[in-house]
Amino acid sequence: METVLRWGLLSAGLISHDFATALRSLPRSEHQIAAVAARDLGRAQDFARRHEIPKSYGSYEELMKDPDVDVVYVAPQHPQHLGAVLQCLAAGKPVLCEKPLGVTTAEVREMVAAARARGLFLMEAIWTRFFPAAEELRALLSQGILGEVRLVRVDFGIELEQFLDRSTDWAQAGGGLLDLGIYCIQYISMVAGGRRPEKIHAVGLLHAKGVDDTVTTVLQYPGGLQASFSCSITTKLSNSFTVFGSKGEAEIPPFMHCPTELVVNGKSTQFPLPKVADTEKFNFSNSIGMVYEAQHVRQCLLQGLKESPVMPLAESELLADILEEARRQIGLRFLQDRA
Amino acid sequence: METVLRWGLLSAGLISHDFATALRSLPRSEHQIAAVAARDLGRAQDFARRHEIPKSYGSYEELMKDPDVDVVYVAPQHPQHLGAVLQCLAAGKPVLCEKPLGVTTAEVREMVAAARARGLFLMEAIWTRFFPAAEELRALLSQGILGEVRLVRVDFGIELEQFLDRSTDWAQAGGGLLDLGIYCIQYISMVAGGRRPEKIHAVGLLHAKGVDDTVTTVLQYPGGLQASFSCSITTKLSNSFTVFGSKGEAEIPPFMHCPTELVVNGKSTQFPLPKVADTEKFNFSNSIGMVYEAQHVRQCLLQGLKESPVMPLAESELLADILEEARRQIGLRFLQDRA
Repeated sequence: METVLRWGLLSAGLISHDFATALRSLPRSEHQIAAVAARDLGRAQDFARRHEIPKSYGSYEELMKDPDVDVVYVAPQHPQHLGAVLQCLAAGKPVLCEKPLGVTTAEVREMVAAARARGLFLMEAIWTRFFPAAEELRALLSQGILGEVRLVRVDFGIELEQFLDRSTDWAQAGGGLLDLGIYCIQYISMVAGGRRPEKIHAVGLLHAKGVDDTVTTVLQYPGGLQASFSCSITTKLSNSFTVFGSKGEAEIPPFMHCPTELVVNGKSTQFPLPKVADTEKFNFSNSIGMVYEAQHVRQCLLQGLKESPVMPLAESELLADILEEARRQIGLRFLQDRA
Repeated sequence: METVLRWGLLSAGLISHDFATALRSLPRSEHQIAAVAARDLGRAQDFARRHEIPKSYGSYEELMKDPDVDVVYVAPQHPQHLGAVLQCLAAGKPVLCEKPLGVTTAEVREMVAAARARGLFLMEAIWTRFFPAAEELRALLSQGILGEVRLVRVDFGIELEQFLDRSTDWAQAGGGLLDLGIYCIQYISMVAGGRRPEKIHAVGLLHAKGVDDTVTTVLQYPGGLQASFSCSITTKLSNSFTVFGSKGEAEIPPFMHCPTELVVNGKSTQFPLPKVADTEKFNFSNSIGMVYEAQHVRQCLLQGLKESPVMPLAESELLADILEEARRQIGLRFLQDRA
């Protein structure tokens, strides 16, 4: 690989738009967008024009075979991740795949196994971890600044159903857990150092359309660390993340999933995001922060890594396990769940 | 009963001191302290002198038999509540008993049954509910201002072990659940309208001295209301209480257990406590707020009620049930737990 990383964007949806906008704010000597693919060629062409991308494809397969693509950003809806990631890997492409990596644990394990078998880089796009505020929190935890960490609490609730139709679409594996809960549990797991919880208990309210509406989960880790999270697609929650330790507390205030602030024992530090031109419009909050994960992926690939040390594949499997267990406990099944 | 309510204070401990100080700030035409009792006569006499109480006794039994006592405030350590309350009731005295009413559900049921059998007033001293901020929150909920309530979250964690020896004393049924968790669960139950949760899941860390150190519990109520609480005797938590509804959120900020502020959708209202003379010293935060529960008890007795409509006996049984279930799940047993 050259020092310039050439991205292929798989899907021309809202999040791909934001990712493209973020990538284009980075030096062209480091990040370029080589191609975009959508199932509809016209959409891909529109997207390519808008983001000045040289190539557009009307099928995912064409993009995967493009020799000018160094890494594929996989961002269709959740149930399409498995097929797309497996195909990319089969075509020899490293992959950054939007979260949740899979709908079920089995899907995630299949992708991880394929990446390992082929010796190709794969990472779940947990962009939150790469924000400077989150990195600072990890540094502070590793230095023991908060003492012994006893409790982690996080929630993510927004009226998602009002602006994202698929959030209540059972056939698309909608609901709070996979879209919002993934952010909560990844933070908890980050503090727990990727360890496996020894207890998971979830309670949940199902939405009239069959997905999970609001879910609250409590976890216990070996050594006594406790955590709880709530997520909701119908109710605004505090959308903050707090770590309580024997020597103090650290909070990432709203929106914790794309943080710009860290409050340690009442003292706030701001972590301003890169500036973007006024003309650049994002669909989601703070999407410019996707540059951090993009830069991380480039560093991993430059170093020849097959997975990220910050968001390793074993942890993606673990996150899927936890979400699946919560889903099982609240009695929510998706098409992807086998008997 | 005359319109003046004559209190007998059973125990001369820290909380009795605060209760006496609060009572003495009320009009003498409404509240008087007739007597105080401690197991040690000298302590009772000192206490009586300090609070200008006419009578002091070296045994609880003498106070219970004093015809000048209209109602007994029972405030020894948790394991002594059962015996003291039963004796007061047997002596024909109405009782306000410090929380937790009993160590176990069985204890609480026994006290409740005795009060009902004798037709005597009994109330668990959940003083929090009578603060104007808490009353305002109940009014707001009953008017549906927050819409459909989906999630309740509350925690109470302070380094209690540093200033209250009994908090780690297993023989005194110490630990977070009975001293701090009771505040959390009473708030949750208040929002749930005293209904019984259909699911309770708890995880916990035990203290080296055998009590519960830190506990996190999640509850689900019929209809989908979810709640979670954490309590800790070693770790400072946020000590706030938040109700998330479909139309907004309400927060009672620290210290939620003796609240002076209610924040509804970001708008804060202050509820200042009654002023007390500078010379009056309290052992605990905002103890002057005990006047609200004392006034409520007086109103109940003036109306001939056998229990409080705000803090009814069935709910005291329910709170005990929930705490006992959490205790069972984390593997904590007390002397009072029978096989």
